Amino acid sequence: MIRTYCTLKQRRLQRNAEVGLFTKPSMGNMDLKELIAAAKGEHPVDCLFTNARIINVFSNEIIAGHIAVSGGYIVGIGEYPAQKTVDLKNRYVSPGFIDAHVHIESSMTSVAEFAKAVVCKGTTTVVADPHEIANVMGTQGLDYMLASSENLPINIFFTLPSCVPATNMETAGAVLDPQIIKPYLNHQRIVGLGEMMNFPGVLFRDDAVIEKIKDTLSSRKPVDGHAPGLTGKDLNAYIAAGISSDHECTTADEAMEKLRLGMHIMIREGTGAKNLKALLSVINEKTADRIMWCTDDRHPHDICEQGHIDYMIRTAVQNGIDPVSAIRIATINPAQYFGLNQVGSIAPGKKADLVVFSDLQNITADEVYCSGRLIVSDGKLMHEDFLTACVSCPSTMNVKAGSIDFVIPAEKEKIRVIELIEKQIITRQSIHDAKIENDFAVADISADILKIAVVERHKGTGNIGKAFVSGFGLKKGAIASSVAHDSHNIIVIGTNDDDMKVAVERIIEMNGGLTAVCDRQISAELPLPIAGLMSDKSLETVRSQMDAMINAARAMGAIVADPFMILSFLALPVIPELKLTDRGLFDVNQFAHVSLFVDRALF
Amino acid sequence: MIRTYCTLKQRRLQRNAEVGLFTKPSMGNMDLKELIAAAKGEHPVDCLFTNARIINVFSNEIIAGHIAVSGGYIVGIGEYPAQKTVDLKNRYVSPGFIDAHVHIESSMTSVAEFAKAVVCKGTTTVVADPHEIANVMGTQGLDYMLASSENLPINIFFTLPSCVPATNMETAGAVLDPQIIKPYLNHQRIVGLGEMMNFPGVLFRDDAVIEKIKDTLSSRKPVDGHAPGLTGKDLNAYIAAGISSDHECTTADEAMEKLRLGMHIMIREGTGAKNLKALLSVINEKTADRIMWCTDDRHPHDICEQGHIDYMIRTAVQNGIDPVSAIRIATINPAQYFGLNQVGSIAPGKKADLVVFSDLQNITADEVYCSGRLIVSDGKLMHEDFLTACVSCPSTMNVKAGSIDFVIPAEKEKIRVIELIEKQIITRQSIHDAKIENDFAVADISADILKIAVVERHKGTGNIGKAFVSGFGLKKGAIASSVAHDSHNIIVIGTNDDDMKVAVERIIEMNGGLTAVCDRQISAELPLPIAGLMSDKSLETVRSQMDAMINAARAMGAIVADPFMILSFLALPVIPELKLTDRGLFDVNQFAHVSLFVDRALF
Repeated sequence: MIRTYCTLKQRRLQRNAEVGLFTKPSMGNMDLKELIAAAKGEHPVDCLFTNARIINVFSNEIIAGHIAVSGGYIVGIGEYPAQKTVDLKNRYVSPGFIDAHVHIESSMTSVAEFAKAVVCKGTTTVVADPHEIANVMGTQGLDYMLASSENLPINIFFTLPSCVPATNMETAGAVLDPQIIKPYLNHQRIVGLGEMMNFPGVLFRDDAVIEKIKDTLSSRKPVDGHAPGLTGKDLNAYIAAGISSDHECTTADEAMEKLRLGMHIMIREGTGAKNLKALLSVINEKTADRIMWCTDDRHPHDICEQGHIDYMIRTAVQNGIDPVSAIRIATINPAQYFGLNQVGSIAPGKKADLVVFSDLQNITADEVYCSGRLIVSDGKLMHEDFLTACVSCPSTMNVKAGSIDFVIPAEKEKIRVIELIEKQIITRQSIHDAKIENDFAVADISADILKIAVVERHKGTGNIGKAFVSGFGLKKGAIASSVAHDSHNIIVIGTNDDDMKVAVERIIEMNGGLTAVCDRQISAELPLPIAGLMSDKSLETVRSQMDAMINAARAMGAIVADPFMILSFLALPVIPELKLTDRGLFDVNQFAHVSLFVDRALF
Repeated sequence: MIRTYCTLKQRRLQRNAEVGLFTKPSMGNMDLKELIAAAKGEHPVDCLFTNARIINVFSNEIIAGHIAVSGGYIVGIGEYPAQKTVDLKNRYVSPGFIDAHVHIESSMTSVAEFAKAVVCKGTTTVVADPHEIANVMGTQGLDYMLASSENLPINIFFTLPSCVPATNMETAGAVLDPQIIKPYLNHQRIVGLGEMMNFPGVLFRDDAVIEKIKDTLSSRKPVDGHAPGLTGKDLNAYIAAGISSDHECTTADEAMEKLRLGMHIMIREGTGAKNLKALLSVINEKTADRIMWCTDDRHPHDICEQGHIDYMIRTAVQNGIDPVSAIRIATINPAQYFGLNQVGSIAPGKKADLVVFSDLQNITADEVYCSGRLIVSDGKLMHEDFLTACVSCPSTMNVKAGSIDFVIPAEKEKIRVIELIEKQIITRQSIHDAKIENDFAVADISADILKIAVVERHKGTGNIGKAFVSGFGLKKGAIASSVAHDSHNIIVIGTNDDDMKVAVERIIEMNGGLTAVCDRQISAELPLPIAGLMSDKSLETVRSQMDAMINAARAMGAIVADPFMILSFLALPVIPELKLTDRGLFDVNQFAHVSLFVDRALF
């Protein structure tokens, strides 16, 4: 398949030519002196947006007025002589929306394509945590994300992934030690430490964890939390460590406990986790300044169908939240929390990132301006030409295709089986009789016991974890993926070794992706050449490809709702009960690797 | 007079012995690991404050609960095993109050004595702008303020004086260029750039002004504003420069214009300027998070009689502001604005700076805890022994007493006279016939035209500005002061040269202060040995001394309400119309020095 990549250097040259009215999302790009002169009205401003109903997130009012823009920045509110006037005809203007915590990797598309998709929804700033790509590529992944988010019309800030590797029970692509992370804390677009998932490491005062937190706070940047269900003294201790936000609340009580103890609450509406409606009751005039919206992990389907942060605003308003509060939560709150001084409000000195809309009860972007330039009109991109190419990414496949085999010599008669639970990412373990053919344990299709394998792809170790899974439903063929949290080795489930091999080898060939194989033929594939996680195609294209993948899996008998999402969590050795890593089966409750073959039933 | 100074080094040794439960106001003093362990309840905490009605500034509620403290920090909210229990008997507990902008010099007492005075009022954190001492001593003044505020029970943070010298029309003690200021921006207790009074410098893009602003913003610290009456495009431009607060609003309309444009509003209740009541209408649930309290310049009398930030809270509540909002404005708001992560709320990881009070409608500190230690009980200091000595300060008098004379050879028959306007610090200029004796122009007591002089005291230039002033009222003697904004040369007004000389020479002898002299005898004096601005005595003592000074001036005929305050502004060449610097008369409207003698009436 032909890729439209260009190199980083080509990309930069190209951008320099394209840049036009664009300005960098980092500070200090427009000369401060020019900004002041423009604000004083010393010469006509570039553009005056007249007759706006401005959402003022400082006074929480809607105020009729004009917005003067020069050099991509708002320079003043009021009457200004201007080279150009845009009459907004009494429509509403909000600051561009901010996603306070997102893994761009979960959109399965490149940074540029993600930007194109979400800007249409009014999102002009995101704080991204490149946790997934960092687990694959380490600092090279951070550098890649920083480079590929330069000079985009939307502002992409990052938090530093705090937990790479996520676990020590598998082979990840990288280790980000405190001393590796520290210099990145000085980067202008790195605005904090990403979600500290390792809460046992916090509570038990792991040296590296404490060092990362201290370094971040010393640089006057916040540490984001990730503390699902943490309560009482453990929560007090987690907060005492200096962790100041959480996006994992699932109930209003949980959110209020955390908010009262000082945490900023990021209400999440992702794909796997949708917490918006459950948490709306937390929002009132007394708490609204402590809340942000975020999407965390949001898949192409939901972004295309429902929207992004705009969906959260709309839903909140439809459920009785004051529209200005809902916008404030989407704008000034995250801007203040992360110290993003140039975004989040309509005021002198801020970037002219504006969302124009007509209906306060159904906030949907008519137009989106980024740095004063019209990027979206009628909800559609105005500049399909911009950013068609994404920054190239080196291959992350360090695995020899020829050496892979999935045979499992039978050692005993009974095996541990990973048992799927409907609509959940946790699993149970059960013991079954192995189906043995020619001294090899094989899939037992009639009992829905399929073979599963995790192929290490980062270090060329040759590790292949092999086991069995029940509840998936395939009657033929195999499906495979290089998206497998959090280390993103290649994971494959199949009814037979040959199809599994074809599926995995095709992923290696594509430098990552998803495959469905039946009778040694590729029935569907979705290339993810960026770190094995992201496509270089548009979000709409990825969404269609993903639909095709799911249909292919279903055609082979898959009974789970979202086969590739379920697949992607089966290698994550922190979610109970039985998982598979490249080093073999892992019992999360025992927190130890366990053998595939057992002597007798466990219970 | 004998001073109780000790050297900086002695002071530090002494503090090390005293320090006990004290902790530094800077970050990272309690080991983070110990904090986490304590929060987990791994061992009994130092102290559990039980049965508290806690002012929760996150959720803006009052919540019954217990507060666990260890090592000077709040480690948890809830039930904890404790070595000691303090039953608060359902009284209210607020985070310690914060003064968002104060010139400690205006209290006319040392940092330690200021701290003792305001902690009794519940103030446990101040953000001080050492503008006055920096104009006298430059970086030595900054260093002095930093050193003398180390290890105090209250937290003293600083903003860097942005305007030293305040003007170029007089001889100041120092010049703080951007390159001198820059390294200070890394100091943990320096939290921003102080009030940018030089708004013409901002609007006309003075290089040094712009550089200071940029450097501060680059260090992720805010730039405080000072923009009395600035409005419209000039205000837009001032804000576009990155200046994010203002404490000079005098009307609600002015405050709302600034707030809507993104400024944080510091409502001020000082001595010269009292804006609280005029601005209360700005505060509501939609704006409360953008507002802070500050005192700016508050003299001993007002602190002793009315109080400090507590007075502002009380007054606000008496005027209908919700008590929790009034407290939030005094606590979390300035903490967030300045990034003071360890103060401003009652939550895990914050310093145990607590104000206990009984009546929500009349908030007056019963007890004040600093870092968990009881410092104030029944409104009185519990540890009179602590901090009796203040850090020594080198002499700032570089002037030869013997060389001073105040004679004015008569050049022409008419003179410009500085004409006081009742109850204002602005002046007018008028032309009078000079009273000439033996070819010298002298005071004309019957016409209330007194001699005034400004004696340069920083550089030993020998400069003495000489002129005449009307409206002061002295019938005999002279009064003098080394507090003379903003360069703080020695200013003197008198009926005769001899008394003026005695008054000034005594100030030089005292290393600064105020004097009243009649018939060559000192009738009252107030030594201000710290930079000629601050006493080493208690605030109460200074207040009594100040009362005596004013009485002495009145006894000599002074008719102005506060003679020494008026005197202190007569050398400030930025407030119209006619002022006197060490280089002579200055016409503020013409923005130029002018001659004392004139040919004819100006009008």
